[in-house]
Amino acid sequence: MGSTGVSIAIDAMGGDYAPAEIVAGALRAKEELGVKILLVGDQQQIEAVIPPKTNMVGLEIVPAQEAIAMDEEPLNAVRKKRQASINVAMDLVKNKQADAVFSAGHSGAAMASALLRLGRLPGIDRPAIGTVFPTIKAGTPVLILDVGANVDCRPKFLEQFAVMGSIYSQYVLGMPEPKIGLLNIGEEDTKGNETALRAHQLLRENTQINFAGNAEGRDVLSGEFDVIVCDGFVGNVLLKFAEAVGGVILQILREELPQGIRGQIGTAILKPNLKRVKQRMDHAEHGGALLLGVNGICFIGHGSSEAPSIFSAIRMAKEAVDNQVLQRLQSQYQILQSESD
Amino acid sequence: MGSTGVSIAIDAMGGDYAPAEIVAGALRAKEELGVKILLVGDQQQIEAVIPPKTNMVGLEIVPAQEAIAMDEEPLNAVRKKRQASINVAMDLVKNKQADAVFSAGHSGAAMASALLRLGRLPGIDRPAIGTVFPTIKAGTPVLILDVGANVDCRPKFLEQFAVMGSIYSQYVLGMPEPKIGLLNIGEEDTKGNETALRAHQLLRENTQINFAGNAEGRDVLSGEFDVIVCDGFVGNVLLKFAEAVGGVILQILREELPQGIRGQIGTAILKPNLKRVKQRMDHAEHGGALLLGVNGICFIGHGSSEAPSIFSAIRMAKEAVDNQVLQRLQSQYQILQSESD
Repeated sequence: MGSTGVSIAIDAMGGDYAPAEIVAGALRAKEELGVKILLVGDQQQIEAVIPPKTNMVGLEIVPAQEAIAMDEEPLNAVRKKRQASINVAMDLVKNKQADAVFSAGHSGAAMASALLRLGRLPGIDRPAIGTVFPTIKAGTPVLILDVGANVDCRPKFLEQFAVMGSIYSQYVLGMPEPKIGLLNIGEEDTKGNETALRAHQLLRENTQINFAGNAEGRDVLSGEFDVIVCDGFVGNVLLKFAEAVGGVILQILREELPQGIRGQIGTAILKPNLKRVKQRMDHAEHGGALLLGVNGICFIGHGSSEAPSIFSAIRMAKEAVDNQVLQRLQSQYQILQSESD
Repeated sequence: MGSTGVSIAIDAMGGDYAPAEIVAGALRAKEELGVKILLVGDQQQIEAVIPPKTNMVGLEIVPAQEAIAMDEEPLNAVRKKRQASINVAMDLVKNKQADAVFSAGHSGAAMASALLRLGRLPGIDRPAIGTVFPTIKAGTPVLILDVGANVDCRPKFLEQFAVMGSIYSQYVLGMPEPKIGLLNIGEEDTKGNETALRAHQLLRENTQINFAGNAEGRDVLSGEFDVIVCDGFVGNVLLKFAEAVGGVILQILREELPQGIRGQIGTAILKPNLKRVKQRMDHAEHGGALLLGVNGICFIGHGSSEAPSIFSAIRMAKEAVDNQVLQRLQSQYQILQSESD
């Protein structure tokens, strides 16, 4: 595939399997998606994991002297290590040398670096981390935000998340008129904690979005909502629970299915079907999380990301660039602000 | 089985399948557990669903003229309908005619009725709803509270939940030294929203419990914690998500496993093993939720409860009575209060 003109800066040093899996996923994205890849990090380490006969067209290594470890305090580390790979990658976006950035490293550090280097979009008080869950309806994912950036949210933050999520859902996930839900403990308008009650009112009155009401925990995977907004505390608990529950179920299947002779025979026969079950429950297909509300396209991946997840995240980043998500977010906010004048 | 002397008041009118399934579960509990059952509600309707040759020893019908519907505003309904089945059932506990109460009706109404009729335990600011989740370790359930009674919690409420949960886990669920977790977004002491940060400190300093630190969403089902405390907003979202996710996975299994001829053969062979998988994921085995912090033993079930869930909940209620949970909660708080004097 030829170049699309989209270039993605990759923090090659971030993640449990960096740089090998990061580079592998990025190279695949370069070939299959035609994006230009800027690998940011320790040149020697990166070169060591690029296979010998790799086509270097569309591939660039941008040296960075430092990296931020998973146990560092993010804001301090980002400030002190000015030449950390995540900072250098962010600067590539800031200086228009790249259209988007991806990191599977310390997500708090990626967030801090994005805030310090790129800044917030006008009209946004707090950027949010969004992530896409598969739902019971095949082909209908749901975008949940915030899943961890803001642990104490004011109602208007949730409203901003809804507007940003709606644009992302429409232009990247392809939902024509995204149905927006507010994560809450009941369907009725009168349910919820103080923040949810006030946010419900704001969302109800907002004409920029298609607000479909409260979404309960049971509605998250129903496919009835395209975007669900919540504060980063409950969103993070939900995300980590959802990620773990797949593993729990797979373990129960592994323990129970092969029991007895019938079990062993049946399990052997069902092997290909069980593999499909695993795939549908797998998060990797849905790639990384995105940082919505900073002045640039930023995707962040799990520390445990391997090449397929990296590839998926880069594909999402390319979609976001191709569909001018950043420009749409900017202009949406100009409209909103002039309306409220 | 002979009578144990434990008597349980059952709101026979509460629940989607009331009174038939409620009565069926209660009759089974009477036979198998030897408890005395007081069925509260419309005498005619109740009698109509008791099978003709039922042994009436240990069974009593306590007439109640009214019932509270699922869509009624709970506090108002409980106040206005003084003769509602849930109120009459609570009064049986208050007047020592029953040791515990169970309702699968409007849970908000059950909560309101318990508060108004029984009152709170001394030292408890807010009662909590606790529910038991299965974990990845067979035979090691985890008690989560609060799952919906208190949507805005102060840190000291969470501390009270922890103390109550610890007693319940030890004396009803049989965990020798229950490991208590605080639901949070990171393992580190410095993570969390304002409430979680302050609650962490209180739990750390509390010598009545075995505080094991923060529990993330991924730790809920790990079996590493015996009790996890959280505010009722996040707890309710988590509970409803967890209940729904089992159904989602079962649907994926139903869709994928029987595909193709191999799939049909394999699925047929594995039928008994798949049934065990379903059982392990099934919530009914673990019965209802309990109301901790009111001056009586109260269990509440899902509106959709059928006889097996009713039976499980009554068994839990009997365990709570047998193990003197209420008395232990009362004395624990006397100790706590004298310590803080």
